[in-house]
Amino acid sequence: MYRYKLVFSYDGTSYFGYERQVDKPSIEGEIEKNLSLILNESILIYASGRTDKGVHALNQVAHFDSSKEILDLDKFKNSINKLLNDDIFIKEICLVNEDFHARFSAKGKEYFYIINTGEYSPFLRNYELFLENIDVKKMELAAKLFIGTHDFKDFTSKPVDDDNFVRQIDSITFSFEDQKLKIYFVGNGFMRYEIRKIAGTLIEVGKGKIGEDFIKAHLASKIDRDIVPYQAPAQGLYLYRVIY
Amino acid sequence: MYRYKLVFSYDGTSYFGYERQVDKPSIEGEIEKNLSLILNESILIYASGRTDKGVHALNQVAHFDSSKEILDLDKFKNSINKLLNDDIFIKEICLVNEDFHARFSAKGKEYFYIINTGEYSPFLRNYELFLENIDVKKMELAAKLFIGTHDFKDFTSKPVDDDNFVRQIDSITFSFEDQKLKIYFVGNGFMRYEIRKIAGTLIEVGKGKIGEDFIKAHLASKIDRDIVPYQAPAQGLYLYRVIY
Repeated sequence: MYRYKLVFSYDGTSYFGYERQVDKPSIEGEIEKNLSLILNESILIYASGRTDKGVHALNQVAHFDSSKEILDLDKFKNSINKLLNDDIFIKEICLVNEDFHARFSAKGKEYFYIINTGEYSPFLRNYELFLENIDVKKMELAAKLFIGTHDFKDFTSKPVDDDNFVRQIDSITFSFEDQKLKIYFVGNGFMRYEIRKIAGTLIEVGKGKIGEDFIKAHLASKIDRDIVPYQAPAQGLYLYRVIY
Repeated sequence: MYRYKLVFSYDGTSYFGYERQVDKPSIEGEIEKNLSLILNESILIYASGRTDKGVHALNQVAHFDSSKEILDLDKFKNSINKLLNDDIFIKEICLVNEDFHARFSAKGKEYFYIINTGEYSPFLRNYELFLENIDVKKMELAAKLFIGTHDFKDFTSKPVDDDNFVRQIDSITFSFEDQKLKIYFVGNGFMRYEIRKIAGTLIEVGKGKIGEDFIKAHLASKIDRDIVPYQAPAQGLYLYRVIY
């Protein structure tokens, strides 16, 4: 058996999310179908994690095992890219040790969320959130509250969690250039809708609808679970890189 | 009657071209439908010119006449943008003199064609041409041959032309940044497929498949019409601005 690592980017717009589904297009399904075709055996890929419907990735990582030794990896990469839909692109393929696991070997992940505060662009409607008149300074201050180890039960729709929804966010950094706000999130693991709920909450802060108290209360609350209703739309979110 | 001027951008990907068609989505049809709805009378718009299926515009210009005086143009702009599909965006609307005509008042037009010579991006598959290993210097030199007044009969698919296919290209300029080549074309009027055929021919020069002689022969030929087979794909072409 040979184990291969893939690094790939995708435009999530036309898929029902990353994870394979019966009768619905998924990124995982599309890659597995074409790898199986080209290698002439049934291939399953294991990614660092899922992304939701409409969410994009710049450097998603996955591994797969095959009985075949691929001699020319560059040529193989070109062949698989020709077969794949043009909204998925394999950037790298390499042979790895059998103890490499795209999900379990990952130490953390970095995502970013992009908000266009300038003029609306019809070309970027699926690739950013358009939002005028938000107070970026207020958002940046409020974001600091999320950094560190917290119980994020109110910032995810995940039904149950072995770790009681406790996760660590290492950093949330802001860049603001040409009226585009990019918010980078680095952490050891993000739960379903977690970043979109945090981004959605920060946006409400930026609009002046809620204050830092709202965030503090939801992070501190120990009793009832009260999931926040704010959730930034999928098209602004990108899995930027997986940290090993 | 009031005459209004519109400046708008659109992503041509999902339309069968600019021009209204029966039972097929067009940019013109989409704008007319929504202007008619909001003004409660039948509105026809007159643009500076058509763009083909898949071609984009950053600043297309059109005018229309209405019996209604629009008192708050900013509010009107927001309302029409809410009604329109999100791949069309009205950037400006203003009242103009009745002698303004989006097509006949235009002195010229500027287009650009964009080629990504770096890494393929699944996000830009509908917004640029991806092409590695082209000699940009050779293309830039060959482009100079097209500048000036020429008989472009071999560089358009237009069946007949009152001016014997004679047009003037004022400039063709190249910009190359971050492995993206942008070729800007300024002229008094471009015929069907003209820029895509010129860009397609320049690409063949860049690949080393043809030389400057090919262009010279096609521009000089006075007898038979021999339309060049090269045509760059629609998705790299943008109507950049209309010059009045």
